[in-house]
Amino acid sequence: MTVQPQVLQPEIAATPEFSFKVAARDGAARTGAITMPRGVIRTPAFMPVGTAATVKGMYPEQVRALGADVVLGNTYHLMLRPGAERVAKLGGLHTFMNWPHPILTDSGGFQVMSLANLRKLTDEGVTFRSHIDGSKHMLSPERSVEIQNLLGSDIVMQLDECVALPCEEKVAEKAMRLSLRWAERCKTAFGDHPGRALFGIVQGGDVPHLRVESARELAAMDLKGYAVGGLAVGEPQDVMLAMIETVEPHLPQEKPRYLMGVGTPDDIVKAVARGIDMFDCVMPTRAGRHGQIFTRFGRMNLKNAKHAEDPRPVDEQSSCPAANGWSRAYLHHLVKAEEMLGKMLLTWVNLAYYQDLMAGLRAAIAAGQLDDFIAETREDWERGEPA
Amino acid sequence: MTVQPQVLQPEIAATPEFSFKVAARDGAARTGAITMPRGVIRTPAFMPVGTAATVKGMYPEQVRALGADVVLGNTYHLMLRPGAERVAKLGGLHTFMNWPHPILTDSGGFQVMSLANLRKLTDEGVTFRSHIDGSKHMLSPERSVEIQNLLGSDIVMQLDECVALPCEEKVAEKAMRLSLRWAERCKTAFGDHPGRALFGIVQGGDVPHLRVESARELAAMDLKGYAVGGLAVGEPQDVMLAMIETVEPHLPQEKPRYLMGVGTPDDIVKAVARGIDMFDCVMPTRAGRHGQIFTRFGRMNLKNAKHAEDPRPVDEQSSCPAANGWSRAYLHHLVKAEEMLGKMLLTWVNLAYYQDLMAGLRAAIAAGQLDDFIAETREDWERGEPA
Repeated sequence: MTVQPQVLQPEIAATPEFSFKVAARDGAARTGAITMPRGVIRTPAFMPVGTAATVKGMYPEQVRALGADVVLGNTYHLMLRPGAERVAKLGGLHTFMNWPHPILTDSGGFQVMSLANLRKLTDEGVTFRSHIDGSKHMLSPERSVEIQNLLGSDIVMQLDECVALPCEEKVAEKAMRLSLRWAERCKTAFGDHPGRALFGIVQGGDVPHLRVESARELAAMDLKGYAVGGLAVGEPQDVMLAMIETVEPHLPQEKPRYLMGVGTPDDIVKAVARGIDMFDCVMPTRAGRHGQIFTRFGRMNLKNAKHAEDPRPVDEQSSCPAANGWSRAYLHHLVKAEEMLGKMLLTWVNLAYYQDLMAGLRAAIAAGQLDDFIAETREDWERGEPA
Repeated sequence: MTVQPQVLQPEIAATPEFSFKVAARDGAARTGAITMPRGVIRTPAFMPVGTAATVKGMYPEQVRALGADVVLGNTYHLMLRPGAERVAKLGGLHTFMNWPHPILTDSGGFQVMSLANLRKLTDEGVTFRSHIDGSKHMLSPERSVEIQNLLGSDIVMQLDECVALPCEEKVAEKAMRLSLRWAERCKTAFGDHPGRALFGIVQGGDVPHLRVESARELAAMDLKGYAVGGLAVGEPQDVMLAMIETVEPHLPQEKPRYLMGVGTPDDIVKAVARGIDMFDCVMPTRAGRHGQIFTRFGRMNLKNAKHAEDPRPVDEQSSCPAANGWSRAYLHHLVKAEEMLGKMLLTWVNLAYYQDLMAGLRAAIAAGQLDDFIAETREDWERGEPA
């Protein structure tokens, strides 16, 4: 395997204190960099998801070589296995998984909502049973921050309550207000860590005035960054985009904005145009394990019999070995035979495409050509491959 | 990931014609090289198994970098999926799987015996139903050679009948005689390919006079290499070793000898001392997928709770990133969480150990110090790690 690393922008260096600088704007879109002791996150950034201290099917050096500046770890999964105290004893998550670059950890709230069959929510926090062994756990705002500190996270997320859409306004409102209270408690628990950041999470479902209130209240807390949560949870894309547009004017311009759990390349492109700086999603890794790839030419299902004798690589112009080094026929074979290497190669193809897309978005914004870039990107997706 | 390739012996080059040269002997053991157009196989050699055109969980460049000179492909699996004609259309197995170095293919006979629930054996060949889709297939000596030629195999194995041990003498005798008749037919079907080889397979169960007869008859056919088959199929190790000792004097000294489907590091060391040059086995890859590793210090089960907080790498002296780059605690976590990366790293550890063992055996034979090397290796296994 020949990994061809992208050259990192040499002019941006790690800094002792966490900071964010916008280098250029194009409409609502921005490109810049988050800097901190462990490195630089070029924005807009896509964060590969490393649920259980591994980006599934990838070596950390490969993830890095594709241009990923940061990965996401899941507090819920890591607190249950191997356990935050254990990870701390072993030197923290960076050492544990061999990823010395920035790590963002979620707060555990989302998985407690989505996974637990037995959970009890109070103002104090969430009590739930482990999906692994049934053991009982309590996740409060304070404990969530403590766990993320034990993991050694560079960007810590507040504990929030996330509700699936559609939902009644009063349900969204209650969750939003609880999330605000929890944000305050997380801020107190986090304290002062110049090199690291605590991000707040805007909630409010699909109700504009709730979203605005949430954004304003969080902005007043002067956190180091803000996430838009509670989206990509069942609503149509236009609702998600409307909520971003509603929230954006109320978030500080000089702070990074992270749209949680999003999404398809199309979602990302549209959210970047609306001012979002950071994304995470299991889509490229999960889709890769199921035979689906994202490419310049749109999506492709490698299970499809039409690939069985196709000697072409996925994308001969890609610098990713997985995209240019094996035939589609071979990938089809591996997928059909359920071979690990198929999942490994397709995950690699997808993460490479996502990182290439982000690099393209950053360059386009810097050049003031975001509209053109998006139009061309979309044309490529829709036209598919040249005959 | 930093792959640190072993330096290949620069003095041995690929040759237009298949040949085998013994460079040194130590007792019955030999070290040397098989040369052919696609490269050099340093012997004694361990061939990682690439059943379905992939060494499970490994990129081909990693396998190469560990020092593997040849991999094995399974005719049975490849004939069913993706199909030999399809592989041929796509440029052959080397191109298909991105392994430009030598490939040995088995004949398909073993899997037809071990896997098929519906099979019928006649002098003509084997009729069986696919374990994938139930479709009916015929494997004759001629078809087996044809398939292996379509795949582009560098070392083609004769079709044989392999019986599990223990078995009645008359069953072993019948299978041995059938295998001899099939060897003749394979030889005729293979014809003359100077750059490639057809190997015959010695059968005869655990009956010495049958083994001797099989070896003598095959030797008389003047094939380019000889395998000892029908071992590691249920018999104790001492029976296997006794059969190797029985057969060895009757096989040509100037031809490579391949012990099929073997085995543990201990099996390999003992068989090398008895004159075997080539091995293949699913053990390092399969064990790795199940949490087991082979190391200088013996076997280790990474599922074991004692590894859960062990910050040491598997073997800090190893040049393999999987063995020196992550803690045992991390590997334990990946195994418990059933993460792909756990299977990937443990497979890598095992193949690295097997290749290092072969390199050690080759060096020891060349230095006339095989007994010492084996004694030290066994001491390390038995003593385990230094405290």
